Amino acid sequence: MNNRGLEGVVAAETKLSHVDGERGELIIAGYRVDDLAPNATFEEVVWLLWNGELPEERELANFRTELASRRSCEVRYMPGVLPLDAIRMLLPPGDDPLDIVAKFPTIVAAVWRLSRKLQPVAPHPRLGHAANYLYMLTGEVPADEKVRALDTYLNTVVDHGLNASTFTARVITSTGSDLVSAVIGAVGALKGPLHGGAPGPALDMVFEIGEASRAEAYLRKKIEAGEKLMGFGHRVYKVRDPRADVLAAAAERMFAAVDLHAGNRSLYALARAVEREALRLLEEYKPGRRLQTNVEFYTALLLHGIGLEVPLFTPAFAVSRVAGWLAHSLEQRAANRLIRPQSEYVGPRDRTWTAPAA
Amino acid sequence: MNNRGLEGVVAAETKLSHVDGERGELIIAGYRVDDLAPNATFEEVVWLLWNGELPEERELANFRTELASRRSCEVRYMPGVLPLDAIRMLLPPGDDPLDIVAKFPTIVAAVWRLSRKLQPVAPHPRLGHAANYLYMLTGEVPADEKVRALDTYLNTVVDHGLNASTFTARVITSTGSDLVSAVIGAVGALKGPLHGGAPGPALDMVFEIGEASRAEAYLRKKIEAGEKLMGFGHRVYKVRDPRADVLAAAAERMFAAVDLHAGNRSLYALARAVEREALRLLEEYKPGRRLQTNVEFYTALLLHGIGLEVPLFTPAFAVSRVAGWLAHSLEQRAANRLIRPQSEYVGPRDRTWTAPAA
Repeated sequence: MNNRGLEGVVAAETKLSHVDGERGELIIAGYRVDDLAPNATFEEVVWLLWNGELPEERELANFRTELASRRSCEVRYMPGVLPLDAIRMLLPPGDDPLDIVAKFPTIVAAVWRLSRKLQPVAPHPRLGHAANYLYMLTGEVPADEKVRALDTYLNTVVDHGLNASTFTARVITSTGSDLVSAVIGAVGALKGPLHGGAPGPALDMVFEIGEASRAEAYLRKKIEAGEKLMGFGHRVYKVRDPRADVLAAAAERMFAAVDLHAGNRSLYALARAVEREALRLLEEYKPGRRLQTNVEFYTALLLHGIGLEVPLFTPAFAVSRVAGWLAHSLEQRAANRLIRPQSEYVGPRDRTWTAPAA
Repeated sequence: MNNRGLEGVVAAETKLSHVDGERGELIIAGYRVDDLAPNATFEEVVWLLWNGELPEERELANFRTELASRRSCEVRYMPGVLPLDAIRMLLPPGDDPLDIVAKFPTIVAAVWRLSRKLQPVAPHPRLGHAANYLYMLTGEVPADEKVRALDTYLNTVVDHGLNASTFTARVITSTGSDLVSAVIGAVGALKGPLHGGAPGPALDMVFEIGEASRAEAYLRKKIEAGEKLMGFGHRVYKVRDPRADVLAAAAERMFAAVDLHAGNRSLYALARAVEREALRLLEEYKPGRRLQTNVEFYTALLLHGIGLEVPLFTPAFAVSRVAGWLAHSLEQRAANRLIRPQSEYVGPRDRTWTAPAA
């Protein structure tokens, strides 16, 4: 069988997440994403993925303490090196999943600040994972509403079946390699534009439109030019991506609660208007294609509202997904089998070496 | 279909190499490994893999010049960090295959010397790839026979179908990611003990035996205790691994030609005696299993003879295989399709969030 994309080939059994594209459902270790993500903290979801059950109160407290003790990481400025490459170059070798999850945000935040000529901010000993990430980026203890919004985002994208980066982590783990090697391989896959998880362009489109009255003309022009509308459609989900709903609701709550400057609040209204118009026009131009708002559209809006700039969107995704990669690596390790497909040779045969004429 | 190891699943078409385990043949871009490896320089084989044909004289000269111009690399000492992790942490981000192949040996050699409290040696502008590697390790221009032996080794292990590290490189590349990300993921897979390519234990066994007269008793004891004889047997090859023959012949030539101290020469004779005895006893204890000397046995002997210490064996493998990984990444990119198998969800469903009792 020659199946270069491995579509439909089942390469792993998992108890971690289930993507049902036809029903528009994502299950994370037994919970629907819309039930789990807005309620749990990221620490609870990481524990759930790694242990199969939500933590008891005491387990959670210990887990938070353990994470806090591992956040510090030596970071140096490397001009021109982007955050995901910095993770690759700075994460110390090792096999401790807590260490890896704890250090991802520290590296991203420090590299980001150094690139803006700001001193890194040391982790705060009493803040949780999401709050600490914002604290290390800004130097200020963030508002609760922003922390809740970031926890919801991190929970929403923490795992999503066997995507290319997760599969990479499992292949590397299947050789018996260490967890740092597995997640660094996964980071390398995440960097690819075909992987998904790059919400920047969707936000750029909203910014370009600028006000709701211009949405229809802008979108018609784009669709008629045959361009793809960033933030709509998904390879797997045939109905609405359930993560989009979770993030839309989180964005609405956050924009309503936080004392944001007027620009942000009107951006939220603008984005909803752009979405409505885009869905209406997509149905008009491509009837029956069922193109829906995807996770990237509301990721962009939510992360922007939290205060992250566009170059931090994909790193924020990695800060969450690393916990999923590790869960898959640990699951792979617990029932391991070397993952080694075959290639089919279609090259020349029967060549023979002749010494160069020279 | 649930096939966790992906055995027998064809995940790529390739013109790079063909492993025929039943016939004991390895073809590299059309050439039998025993024809190509002892005759070509490593630069010629890399060119062959990347271009499909051996280079013309002028192409080869340019290629050598281009590699030479890219060898320098900033390396800093990181206590306790092993060479393969150092490659991960020091290779600059990028997408230039020449840059990557050129810098692998520089990083390994510099990290090795720094770990022994020696100053790194800058690359030699006029030496080829294999000679430069030895020069940067030792600070001395190596004897021609050692260079020929190392070229033969590098050519022999440069590519070997779709093993786990090569597959990792193709998966990462399939997302559209850069070549450095692909090879770093592959390095991570190579680090796993199930990957193969760790010839140290085979050499340790020869050292432990110490003299030919003790081989039979030592080996009988090991086999009767149910232990695996390192350096014998292969997952794919049912007859003799063709790479073992190439490396055995290269070792014999090198040990005969180089003015080695007596210890080395007698080690070669000892290793051949151990091999003969091992094959005899394996046939006695496990008749019909066709267990043969594998590539690791002669790799260990050859690299030891060249002057590499055991911790440099796997890095030497990476110094070669990186050219194969890159060839596969370039081939994947030229006819790309995202590699994304599926997982089967076997976890709980219908859990619902309840706020903690606290």
